[in-house]
Amino acid sequence: MRIGFIGLGNMGSAMAANLLKAGHDVTVYNRSRGKVDELAEKGAVPAASVADACGGDVVVTMLANDEAVEGVAFGDGGIVASLAPGTTHVSSSTISPALAERLTAAHAEAGQHFIAAPVFGRPEAAAAAKLFVIAAGPPAPMQQVSDVFDAIGQRTFVVSEQPSAASLVKLSGNFLIMSVIEALGEAMALVGKAGVDKHQYLDILTSTLFAAPVYQTYGGLIASGQFEPAGFAATLGQKDARLVLKAAEDLNVPMPLASLIRDRFLALLARGGADLDWAAIGALSAWEAGGAPPTGN
Amino acid sequence: MRIGFIGLGNMGSAMAANLLKAGHDVTVYNRSRGKVDELAEKGAVPAASVADACGGDVVVTMLANDEAVEGVAFGDGGIVASLAPGTTHVSSSTISPALAERLTAAHAEAGQHFIAAPVFGRPEAAAAAKLFVIAAGPPAPMQQVSDVFDAIGQRTFVVSEQPSAASLVKLSGNFLIMSVIEALGEAMALVGKAGVDKHQYLDILTSTLFAAPVYQTYGGLIASGQFEPAGFAATLGQKDARLVLKAAEDLNVPMPLASLIRDRFLALLARGGADLDWAAIGALSAWEAGGAPPTGN
Amino acid sequence: MRIGFIGLGNMGSAMAANLLKAGHDVTVYNRSRGKVDELAEKGAVPAASVADACGGDVVVTMLANDEAVEGVAFGDGGIVASLAPGTTHVSSSTISPALAERLTAAHAEAGQHFIAAPVFGRPEAAAAAKLFVIAAGPPAPMQQVSDVFDAIGQRTFVVSEQPSAASLVKLSGNFLIMSVIEALGEAMALVGKAGVDKHQYLDILTSTLFAAPVYQTYGGLIASGQFEPAGFAATLGQKDARLVLKAAEDLNVPMPLASLIRDRFLALLARGGADLDWAAIGALSAWEAGGAPPTGN
Amino acid sequence: MRIGFIGLGNMGSAMAANLLKAGHDVTVYNRSRGKVDELAEKGAVPAASVADACGGDVVVTMLANDEAVEGVAFGDGGIVASLAPGTTHVSSSTISPALAERLTAAHAEAGQHFIAAPVFGRPEAAAAAKLFVIAAGPPAPMQQVSDVFDAIGQRTFVVSEQPSAASLVKLSGNFLIMSVIEALGEAMALVGKAGVDKHQYLDILTSTLFAAPVYQTYGGLIASGQFEPAGFAATLGQKDARLVLKAAEDLNVPMPLASLIRDRFLALLARGGADLDWAAIGALSAWEAGGAPPTGN
Repeated sequence: MRIGFIGLGNMGSAMAANLLKAGHDVTVYNRSRGKVDELAEKGAVPAASVADACGGDVVVTMLANDEAVEGVAFGDGGIVASLAPGTTHVSSSTISPALAERLTAAHAEAGQHFIAAPVFGRPEAAAAAKLFVIAAGPPAPMQQVSDVFDAIGQRTFVVSEQPSAASLVKLSGNFLIMSVIEALGEAMALVGKAGVDKHQYLDILTSTLFAAPVYQTYGGLIASGQFEPAGFAATLGQKDARLVLKAAEDLNVPMPLASLIRDRFLALLARGGADLDWAAIGALSAWEAGGAPPTGN
Repeated sequence: MRIGFIGLGNMGSAMAANLLKAGHDVTVYNRSRGKVDELAEKGAVPAASVADACGGDVVVTMLANDEAVEGVAFGDGGIVASLAPGTTHVSSSTISPALAERLTAAHAEAGQHFIAAPVFGRPEAAAAAKLFVIAAGPPAPMQQVSDVFDAIGQRTFVVSEQPSAASLVKLSGNFLIMSVIEALGEAMALVGKAGVDKHQYLDILTSTLFAAPVYQTYGGLIASGQFEPAGFAATLGQKDARLVLKAAEDLNVPMPLASLIRDRFLALLARGGADLDWAAIGALSAWEAGGAPPTGN
Repeated sequence: MRIGFIGLGNMGSAMAANLLKAGHDVTVYNRSRGKVDELAEKGAVPAASVADACGGDVVVTMLANDEAVEGVAFGDGGIVASLAPGTTHVSSSTISPALAERLTAAHAEAGQHFIAAPVFGRPEAAAAAKLFVIAAGPPAPMQQVSDVFDAIGQRTFVVSEQPSAASLVKLSGNFLIMSVIEALGEAMALVGKAGVDKHQYLDILTSTLFAAPVYQTYGGLIASGQFEPAGFAATLGQKDARLVLKAAEDLNVPMPLASLIRDRFLALLARGGADLDWAAIGALSAWEAGGAPPTGN
Repeated sequence: MRIGFIGLGNMGSAMAANLLKAGHDVTVYNRSRGKVDELAEKGAVPAASVADACGGDVVVTMLANDEAVEGVAFGDGGIVASLAPGTTHVSSSTISPALAERLTAAHAEAGQHFIAAPVFGRPEAAAAAKLFVIAAGPPAPMQQVSDVFDAIGQRTFVVSEQPSAASLVKLSGNFLIMSVIEALGEAMALVGKAGVDKHQYLDILTSTLFAAPVYQTYGGLIASGQFEPAGFAATLGQKDARLVLKAAEDLNVPMPLASLIRDRFLALLARGGADLDWAAIGALSAWEAGGAPPTGN
């Protein structure tokens, strides 16, 4: 397949490299040039503009947020204006369901296809082609781009014919992580105030019922009280909490735990914690219980 | 060691059997007689009363709840009245921190020792001597009863010299499970209303970040909407939520997620769901979002 | 003063009539014509377009929501394009703080002034010139339009030089009303389930500590379970709850009670209650406690 | 009537004085002697013990809390042991519904009657015989003691034949006050962070929709940030929040706002605010939003 790839961050460059390895003809575009050259050495064709990356069967975008995707998708020289009819835009970024719907409509109007395909996995998994792909979109183009997913991931879940559903599933995964952080924060505030060592407590949890990396990772951060440098910043967590609640509002689904988490992020930001790891909301319970706030600001 | 064992339910009879296997001299007592006979065939000495089980170095209790433990511990012929000075009562039941404190004081006054040692693990783990023991109490008797823990479990965590801390750790584990149920309930209400299949959604979660039995088990119950027969009844969940909040109140620890969960249980009980599995609180979000309540009452 | 007045609903037509009574030269515009004629009989000059109403010293807008205000303010022939430099736009509609900020910037760029001046009071109070005016904006134009406020209200509160602050104060008042509804809903669910008559209960409250119309009005609706016809529809309540939370998010202010109320509105809407009076969220507690939902859908 | 009166605090001594004024034969008892002498000068008969106050047709108790009422009601020489069959105990203290039930049963077993009759009103209202009496109990004794209520209050509401219902109504009134505090706390945190003066804001509220003393009183405390000396201490507020939630739990009524308030009290107590006025929970929103905690501890 002839594939355009836009967005060569840690995740995107690894995914593009795997598409090359799988034998595809890949044209790459990135706002800054360094990553383009690296991939050119591996056989990719450099594109001078977004439009230049839109000449094949499919274009994949892997960008930071809604604004970045909007920036390359819309307007003169954007993806919608540049793709040929019948070709497909695959968005692997974590975007809002609302933007997924907007892209679905815009591409349909232009005679093109849109598939949302956010991924679960960190850069190491991307490099090893071990991502999990959560895909949603119409069946025919989904069939056509399945080789793309096979090249970058270990397994693809097609969750709906509506692209926005894939965005929602991805966001809900982040909500579940935040829920673990909040639950651990409350539990550790409780046992900690009773004199139990938080690291030992976490050891108990992860040795027994909660033997999952998400407990290990976030429990460790809360137990140590170390929230810098941020693996995923509190501002990004707050954004995702807002997107989850916006989607829930659009569907009339009350989510009280998501509301609680949203308020946690606001309290953290009000204390100057925007740049801390999002796990810092797990320190707010201990703060309310008489301890120190997660940051000195 | 000469060990008395009181409470021969699924868990207790397996634990007592393992104490016999490890070569200890075990006297067993149970309110109903059947289990006593089974263990007698394996070498245990039947006791005719609670007091009869209190003649050794240590007595272990493994009972359903606070009331059952109070019933054998206090009063004429109870454990406190029957144990010799210098011997130890090990409570492996899940009891409230408040009862742990009361037992600590009563045994101390009688010149005896008290250790709280609730366990993590289901009957299968108990049979295989693979329990995790969460123990708390003073160092000297803790040392003396370590052979008991070695015989019944795969690992012992000594979390505090205050017995009540072990009760609190055990309860907090149940709180974390409830948190998973609530989070999954909200997430599934959201993606379900967007048309995503709940079973496939759970498959995604447990294939990726949430590969822990607790997600598999409770997510499966919520996805299927099958809450009967109950593995752990909603009334028991509500009791544990109450005990967690009571302990949090005593320590001045706000736990908003625990409060939310408590209200979920009350709504479930108000709908006639007392006998459903506690995972049924995970169906309340979908109900609020316009679906059916978890029970037809 | 020469005053343009746009928006002749129940509130606006009463306000415009009072401006005429006070001797001002008033030009009126409304999308539908009937109200224009009524005011013309009282001495107003009919305007054929929004621009026609913008020829004086000040133009007042009194419209239903953000969208309506945006519709007359922006674009060709809109207020910003039509007002002379140095003149003032007074918005008495309940708009979002975000729109107030956008209008502030647009008018400033056009060399005009913007004042937000939402009002407290129902149509009867508007007719009697007994409104309370919550005004915010720069001092000089505020001074110039004070005669407008004197003509329509009994008292003016200038709360800030930032127009958005007046919008926020108005919205927060609606939040406080929602809070009363939620609190009464929970209290009545509790005493009602204990067998106390809800009407008598309300009589007790309003005879003692809660002798305010807001308790009488909303308590009466909840006690009777009559939410149709709506005085203020649930969809409008939900919109205001969203605007409050949006403003709180922009300022990093956690508002857990507002979050709870937002979820109440979503549950009500999910049950088909969009057209019920917003007091219907006060029936959700009794529903959760085992009673009937506020609507049969 | 021959009336015993137990508990001569600010409220009780005023109530007893009004019973004397109404021509009743009143025997008074108090733990400390000073108030007894004052009332004796007004014509009361001093009682040397609780039992001595139980020789008439009715005994009224007006004490601080459950423990104080239990102290005079039960045990040798207590009210239950001392009252003649067919006579009545009227409890005007704010007690828990659970204690009301216990007293109901104990008096019934002794062939006596029990009526719960907590009052709304401060000491000034008690002195002026302007209390509101919330009474519950069986019809016949209720009829017999109606003169007592006429002498101390301006109006009596008979809410149920179950005494516990009156306790619940009284407690729910305190819950409604806490709700006002929480709502004002959130609203003031919001508008305050937007630069609006909190005192002016309160002036707006109490001039318009919220013209009730409860808004004036608690809004003033929150606006000024002055929580000492306490009119009603945070520890008492927390106790009432706990009693409300306990009653709600017994009736399976989820009360999320009450749960939120409970957590507010715990956070306040954890910060050393036990002795502050309960309105100090209204300062926690501003604290979470980046301001100072309500107390410096």
